[in-house]
Amino acid sequence: MKKIQLLKIVCASLILICMSCKKAEEAPGEQAASAAAFDLAAAKTSVEAGYAEFEKAFNAKDSVALANCYTSDAKFMNPNGKAVVGRPAIQNTFGMWFNGDTSTIKLNLVDLWGNETNLTAENAWTMYDKDGKVLDDGKSLEVYKMEDGKWKLYRDCYNSNMPAMPMKK
Amino acid sequence: MKKIQLLKIVCASLILICMSCKKAEEAPGEQAASAAAFDLAAAKTSVEAGYAEFEKAFNAKDSVALANCYTSDAKFMNPNGKAVVGRPAIQNTFGMWFNGDTSTIKLNLVDLWGNETNLTAENAWTMYDKDGKVLDDGKSLEVYKMEDGKWKLYRDCYNSNMPAMPMKK
Repeated sequence: MKKIQLLKIVCASLILICMSCKKAEEAPGEQAASAAAFDLAAAKTSVEAGYAEFEKAFNAKDSVALANCYTSDAKFMNPNGKAVVGRPAIQNTFGMWFNGDTSTIKLNLVDLWGNETNLTAENAWTMYDKDGKVLDDGKSLEVYKMEDGKWKLYRDCYNSNMPAMPMKK
Repeated sequence: MKKIQLLKIVCASLILICMSCKKAEEAPGEQAASAAAFDLAAAKTSVEAGYAEFEKAFNAKDSVALANCYTSDAKFMNPNGKAVVGRPAIQNTFGMWFNGDTSTIKLNLVDLWGNETNLTAENAWTMYDKDGKVLDDGKSLEVYKMEDGKWKLYRDCYNSNMPAMPMKK
């Protein structure tokens, strides 16, 4: 009888182990589904919230807040000049631009690709003068990286839809 | 004794089931590793082979071959004009550019991000005149999509490192 009891205990233990195995076995399917269905809609909401922060900082001429939309190691790939590398240099560039500037900007997310590691966005932007008249408009591709728990601009390459104008002195 | 034999058989079966469960349990780790280790090195080789094709087509002033580096639904986001959408329009744009043009181009892959679905590349490009003198240089971000079994340019946004020049008449 003792042998039977021991075997019963072994059987019960094995059943429990199998049940936990079964649970673990279900995980890959769920993981695969979650990887395949990376929540691009949630990422889109985050990028659009970032656009609102970018606009607010730009329109307030707040170069610190604007530079904070970029990762610490970002490249601001602006036209007609070499790329500006790193948040301090980007902040400095915006600081110079904002000196006496009264323009405002509006960003529109056109398309978004990516995964948990990086996002790439297509953006259509418009700049207005203080009376709301269009000064410039254009397009950009942006690469995002997660930093401090937020999607931040890691690469930002843009150009204008308008004919080239020589730089003002 | 019959009860003991039955229990032994049940135990043996449960052990076998557990062993097969254990095997299944190992799968997610392997799957995750294979997903994490998307072969970016191979993708880099493909993108660089695409750059060689792009340069060859550009330097031969072959607008058909150059447009074929782009997906059928690509957006060529060139500076100082609206984006050119779709391969036929892109081919037409290059055709107009190439009329009488003798410049050559060199592309350099700076960085690459992505997965099986899309790649994003950072590119540093230089244009030369027929005597090998630098005419222009700049940077771009490119989004790639797989079409006809090849990574092709799906979005291509670039600008120059040189000061803006007004358009020639």
